Amino acid sequence: MDFTVKDVIHVERYHVFEAHLLKEGKALFYLGEKTYEVHSFQMNESEYAIRFMPREEGLWRYTVISDNTEENGKFNCVPNTGNNHGMVHAEGFHFRYDDGARYLPFGTTCYAWIHQPEEIQEETLRSLDSAPFNKIRMCVFPKHMPYNHNEPEYFPFGKKADGTWDVRKPEPRFWQNLEKRIGKLGNMGIEVDLILFHPYDRWGFSTLSMEECLVYLNYCVARLGGYRNIWWSLANEYDLITARKTEDWETFGRTLVEKDPYHHLISIHHCFTPFPKADWMTHCSMQTGLVRNALLWRKEYQLPVIIDECGYEGNIEFGWGNLSAFELVHRCWSAVSSGAYVTHGETFFREDEVLWWAKGGVLRGEGVVRLRFLKDLLSGLPQELDPLPSPKWLPNPNESKPNEGEGAEGIVAALLKMPEAERNRLVLELRPALVGSPDYRLEYLGRTCPVFRDLELPETGSYQVDVIDIWDMTCKTAEPDTHGKIRINLPGKEGIAVLVKRLSSQGL
Amino acid sequence: MDFTVKDVIHVERYHVFEAHLLKEGKALFYLGEKTYEVHSFQMNESEYAIRFMPREEGLWRYTVISDNTEENGKFNCVPNTGNNHGMVHAEGFHFRYDDGARYLPFGTTCYAWIHQPEEIQEETLRSLDSAPFNKIRMCVFPKHMPYNHNEPEYFPFGKKADGTWDVRKPEPRFWQNLEKRIGKLGNMGIEVDLILFHPYDRWGFSTLSMEECLVYLNYCVARLGGYRNIWWSLANEYDLITARKTEDWETFGRTLVEKDPYHHLISIHHCFTPFPKADWMTHCSMQTGLVRNALLWRKEYQLPVIIDECGYEGNIEFGWGNLSAFELVHRCWSAVSSGAYVTHGETFFREDEVLWWAKGGVLRGEGVVRLRFLKDLLSGLPQELDPLPSPKWLPNPNESKPNEGEGAEGIVAALLKMPEAERNRLVLELRPALVGSPDYRLEYLGRTCPVFRDLELPETGSYQVDVIDIWDMTCKTAEPDTHGKIRINLPGKEGIAVLVKRLSSQGL
Repeated sequence: MDFTVKDVIHVERYHVFEAHLLKEGKALFYLGEKTYEVHSFQMNESEYAIRFMPREEGLWRYTVISDNTEENGKFNCVPNTGNNHGMVHAEGFHFRYDDGARYLPFGTTCYAWIHQPEEIQEETLRSLDSAPFNKIRMCVFPKHMPYNHNEPEYFPFGKKADGTWDVRKPEPRFWQNLEKRIGKLGNMGIEVDLILFHPYDRWGFSTLSMEECLVYLNYCVARLGGYRNIWWSLANEYDLITARKTEDWETFGRTLVEKDPYHHLISIHHCFTPFPKADWMTHCSMQTGLVRNALLWRKEYQLPVIIDECGYEGNIEFGWGNLSAFELVHRCWSAVSSGAYVTHGETFFREDEVLWWAKGGVLRGEGVVRLRFLKDLLSGLPQELDPLPSPKWLPNPNESKPNEGEGAEGIVAALLKMPEAERNRLVLELRPALVGSPDYRLEYLGRTCPVFRDLELPETGSYQVDVIDIWDMTCKTAEPDTHGKIRINLPGKEGIAVLVKRLSSQGL
Repeated sequence: MDFTVKDVIHVERYHVFEAHLLKEGKALFYLGEKTYEVHSFQMNESEYAIRFMPREEGLWRYTVISDNTEENGKFNCVPNTGNNHGMVHAEGFHFRYDDGARYLPFGTTCYAWIHQPEEIQEETLRSLDSAPFNKIRMCVFPKHMPYNHNEPEYFPFGKKADGTWDVRKPEPRFWQNLEKRIGKLGNMGIEVDLILFHPYDRWGFSTLSMEECLVYLNYCVARLGGYRNIWWSLANEYDLITARKTEDWETFGRTLVEKDPYHHLISIHHCFTPFPKADWMTHCSMQTGLVRNALLWRKEYQLPVIIDECGYEGNIEFGWGNLSAFELVHRCWSAVSSGAYVTHGETFFREDEVLWWAKGGVLRGEGVVRLRFLKDLLSGLPQELDPLPSPKWLPNPNESKPNEGEGAEGIVAALLKMPEAERNRLVLELRPALVGSPDYRLEYLGRTCPVFRDLELPETGSYQVDVIDIWDMTCKTAEPDTHGKIRINLPGKEGIAVLVKRLSSQGL
């Protein structure tokens, strides 16, 4: 047997252990009662590799099986350091790193940035370095669409004699570049929401056969699964890919769960119709401008919800790509105040067609700094926020009975006579964008412009009330220490939120 | 028989001819082959009156029948003058005055202004005098609601011995004031969209018996039907009035059509569920913040659509009453660009609770002047605007087939897989807010911020393209004389519209 092991002595927890082989093979890794099986992938015409990410500290033993021989080895997994907190996993409606650190997704979108010239890729990394984003939505396959006409330098596969893609012939330079980018992003604390399929295609990647797709998926798992910051996004806008049926996506999902020993996060992103709940889904990756729909999706999926496309800040000709900065920031606050997370994107017209949302480059929107403000604010609250119940008089979405309540019988009766779909939508509008935790309560007032808000805090205890301006990025204490029924004065403009913090005594 | 006739010699067309009687009675009015029958109404304890609005010039003859006697008379109907264009009626999806003059509804809302102290009523009239509004939504009955706690000076009826309302005992001072206001508004060119019932009640007007309601409606018709500027609004938010069933409203509608010899405009306004189409309806009086729904309602009702409540500019605590001025103006432009008309309202907090939407007083919003700009712009176009077809690739609302189109098959297929209600809502969002006439084409770009718009004008002919800023109230000519495929530069901000005018040759 012929293989070489790099970095055999010490591997940091959640880093990649890599072994090189001359033939295909697999490896088993053992620690205590844990066993992981990982498969090799082809590096180039003459070389294969095995990658493994240890998630527990200690002395790992392994057996590499290749070419009918076995070889054993061991390495020491040492504690993770600095920015390395391990993989992100779902916990209830939220996310957390493996080492217990908090992770609040604030993603951005650069679908085809790895298919751009080297200098643009480097520029993108510099931009990300000074941006607040900790997740990036990006595709393996190149993108064909308005503002996306340039040909990438490398493709993931070589071609057969007949000119079609040979999925068994990976193009080393493509994958080396991709994993270089994944590694760099990992060091920057940025999760890679890797989009495995998408509809915007002129090369034939969206119409591979099912068998070819599975070869490709297995390759992705073997080659990239060892990176702690990989998330699998089965598709961008799966419902626009006409070559695939629902069952195909189910097959892909199950394949990933089966083959990925680490169980990285898995989602599938839609354009018009959300994919039905499936066992392999770890969270919802949604598209909508009506981000308050997150409330319904949380209920339906019982998973964390990320609105991965709510429209992009920009000024191009398409409705999805010409939101004002305020509208983007407003949608992000609405999403967060509906118990969801949200992903940023920018589409500012440039003659050279280098638009952030597809190609990366530079950020120029006014939203970024305000998303940082939101991220910092949420990160500063030590508890995750979940939607609080509707006011008593308002029926819950998807429920034909109102909450118990006094008064407003006419309104409740009239609401209950509406068709359910219409009522649900209306209730979402009527319902306050209100989330809370044991010690915090955040209400986002959206585009409404009230000059006051009446709060009913508990009659005893001590509470601080802050008024937040999402655009001016201020957080001013309106009441440093209060309780009971109070009226808070507000500036009467769009984009105001009210944060209540419990200082002592009773719950909110 | 005892009656006196005022102003018997000459009555201006569309003015009120009035005869006073000592007993109940009715009258027949003749001109050529036309006959109108009108009933008397009680003015006070000892006096009745008959009112008649002649709509044709010439010598009218009449017979008054009362107390078992008949008396004949005649008067001369002379041409209408000045601001008097007669009644407004529906024509297709639009409105017109009886004398052929154009009428583009730009209403406002002062539900309970006639129930306020005299000085506020006078202030309201002064405000209206310098405002652009040509319709007002106002109630016969007083209003009970937040910011509406004061007791009116007069009620429409006296009371029975048991303290309940006696609908057969009209309170003269109430009705004299109401008709004084109607007359004054008529002189100002303002139509009175008179709300006959509403749910916001602490006095018992919303729970009268059906018999009492019909007595009241007959009284309204006899007393107020002669005013050219009356529209009958059966209800504000009929679906919140728990005492009434759908059949009751049908009865009211049929009663008005039967008893009102002039067939004034009739509508019924909803809160959550639009009233089903009925023969007696002349137009739709809708409530929604999603004003683009007008496209669906036009299709469903085949009637003119007025969004009579799209939310109010203001800063109170309720979501319906704290729109920014921009949001209100934006909704108005969206409505107009969806083939509908729209009604204004203001709810700015005041300690004295005198909010325009209920009580009148003074206007302080930034929307009014911008609605004037919109009204002037539309009035300046000599043709009414109707929705233009969707782009080829987009299915029409309520249609499960897409338009014929090339490309975008994936998008069309995905759209068609959506549940119909969801698809309809989405198509409304995706569809351009585009209306046109033989010589004009107006597209409102809403909150989108594109820096250009590509237009495909006919390859021959001459067209002028103007760019409108709905907030800055500017209309700048981008292309004084053009044709074919062109790109128009835009400022990349919210609230922009593009107006194309055909100067010569082919249609748009």
